[in-house]
Amino acid sequence: MPHRSLEEFREERSEGQALLMETEHLGLKRFLRLDTAAYEDGALSSRTKELLGLAASMVLRCNDCVDYHLEQCVKAGYGRDEIVDALNVALIVGGSIVIPHLRHAMFTLEELLAE
Amino acid sequence: MPHRSLEEFREERSEGQALLMETEHLGLKRFLRLDTAAYEDGALSSRTKELLGLAASMVLRCNDCVDYHLEQCVKAGYGRDEIVDALNVALIVGGSIVIPHLRHAMFTLEELLAE
Amino acid sequence: MPHRSLEEFREERSEGQALLMETEHLGLKRFLRLDTAAYEDGALSSRTKELLGLAASMVLRCNDCVDYHLEQCVKAGYGRDEIVDALNVALIVGGSIVIPHLRHAMFTLEELLAE
Amino acid sequence: MPHRSLEEFREERSEGQALLMETEHLGLKRFLRLDTAAYEDGALSSRTKELLGLAASMVLRCNDCVDYHLEQCVKAGYGRDEIVDALNVALIVGGSIVIPHLRHAMFTLEELLAE
Amino acid sequence: MPHRSLEEFREERSEGQALLMETEHLGLKRFLRLDTAAYEDGALSSRTKELLGLAASMVLRCNDCVDYHLEQCVKAGYGRDEIVDALNVALIVGGSIVIPHLRHAMFTLEELLAE
Amino acid sequence: MPHRSLEEFREERSEGQALLMETEHLGLKRFLRLDTAAYEDGALSSRTKELLGLAASMVLRCNDCVDYHLEQCVKAGYGRDEIVDALNVALIVGGSIVIPHLRHAMFTLEELLAE
Repeated sequence: MPHRSLEEFREERSEGQALLMETEHLGLKRFLRLDTAAYEDGALSSRTKELLGLAASMVLRCNDCVDYHLEQCVKAGYGRDEIVDALNVALIVGGSIVIPHLRHAMFTLEELLAE
Repeated sequence: MPHRSLEEFREERSEGQALLMETEHLGLKRFLRLDTAAYEDGALSSRTKELLGLAASMVLRCNDCVDYHLEQCVKAGYGRDEIVDALNVALIVGGSIVIPHLRHAMFTLEELLAE
Repeated sequence: MPHRSLEEFREERSEGQALLMETEHLGLKRFLRLDTAAYEDGALSSRTKELLGLAASMVLRCNDCVDYHLEQCVKAGYGRDEIVDALNVALIVGGSIVIPHLRHAMFTLEELLAE
Repeated sequence: MPHRSLEEFREERSEGQALLMETEHLGLKRFLRLDTAAYEDGALSSRTKELLGLAASMVLRCNDCVDYHLEQCVKAGYGRDEIVDALNVALIVGGSIVIPHLRHAMFTLEELLAE
Repeated sequence: MPHRSLEEFREERSEGQALLMETEHLGLKRFLRLDTAAYEDGALSSRTKELLGLAASMVLRCNDCVDYHLEQCVKAGYGRDEIVDALNVALIVGGSIVIPHLRHAMFTLEELLAE
Repeated sequence: MPHRSLEEFREERSEGQALLMETEHLGLKRFLRLDTAAYEDGALSSRTKELLGLAASMVLRCNDCVDYHLEQCVKAGYGRDEIVDALNVALIVGGSIVIPHLRHAMFTLEELLAE
């Protein structure tokens, strides 16, 4: 399978986040905290907000963001059919340009469900 | 309030959809049906999928789509705090470029909740 | 019909282009000339390239650009069915987020065909 | 001049920001503060960062954001030629799809310089 | 040549489409059929619509979509000069941000014409 | 480090630019010249305009463009803190969807500063 594996993504993401933290840029660090906080339980449950993050990442066509939110969605207990149903909303909103990212999401989902 | 009102949006949308139907283009009509079907109950509830549609519309920065999904979300029973929490996820994903659409959403939400 | 009319677009576009010319910025003026030249007969006909400009404008969701290229397409002799068929390709590529621009295009097309 | 005036933008923006503040959503308020802080003096001057905000707003094609940053740039002392030179970089990066926003920026710039 | 080869794209695309089909999601399958149908002969020829798909994919900056439509365009009989002329329209519409995808398209085009 | 290295980017970019030049398409060549000229000293300094190019590339989420402008910014004498401050403006404007490109930029910046 020639596409970037989930393992490679995790390793690169981890190294990259460390570099971001080393910058000591206050605004940047605050944004990263705010980003984490946005998916915590609030008026909506964390679980629902992870699904919103997945749909938003799909229509903006960012594979790294899709992988991150897919992992959170699987951890939150969504099953394959529910995730595919969310991906379908993103496909309809975003059109065929989303299809390569849909294929990518399917590869990642297989890896996540196999873990 | 100088921005386009919900009433104007509904009227223009209704006229525009009629023009789309008059084209008699089979592919176009099928897409419109598929779009409607994507938000019906499936592995995920219709209610959850409307919220996905709202988040996707916000990060893609389309006021007409935001207004449409806001109305569906209010009909589905989401309260102000839940909708604002969903909008906040979209703001974090999409950044400050989303803010003008967030302001627009707040105007529309006021109109919807007043109805 | 509350949406911006073709007449308003033409007037605003004309005033705006005049302001751009008055800047006397060489790079900006060269880009505007290159933009015009891109749609002239070359390996592809001007007529075909106007249709490419329309499809590109639709998926990038720019109503002003859509109006400009629709007018060029009607001048180039495309009929309603051909233009709707091109818009359908853009709808499939770009998804439901394109629909408000599709409605806008239908209003403009009506105005153009009535002229 | 049929396009939305700077006066209308300011009024609508002011009303919209008030609605955002009334939400009492902590994440949303923190993002708005972080947004303001991003343009304050740091390793780069506030003045330079306002120009970055303008270029980013242009290529993302958001008229409200363009108007906001244009006003900040004029306040920061940039002259017409400098602003047009920044807009030209955005035009080259973003292509002809940026032109309607370039025209909008020229209208706003005229209004700002006349004040 | 370090970039992803056409061969790798075809293999990954084929595997990914199989995973999409295995989902048994009715909406998703219908969208894929509608996507195929959008490029069949209609008011416009299939040949013309493939070129529209290429231009739309370029300005939306999706290399996988570009590769797919390039292959269809070569199969439809477009020569190198015609394809480059279409890519130039996309470059003007989308700006310098499109250039990396233009380079990618040139690599793919070389591979396709060598086959 | 699994991500594409700066060395690979430079090699692929160089090969790709050669293919673009071989097309002998006049419009395409003129655009490439205009692109180069946009960053030369004018009403704004070349140095300032490279930073605008970097911010625009970040919010449009193009790693190749980010790498190109990062290299120009380092050559123009910007230090790590100034570049990170510019990247932070792009993060705030573009949101969390920009984060993977921010990580990419940090890897590239490390490579550039080590040269």
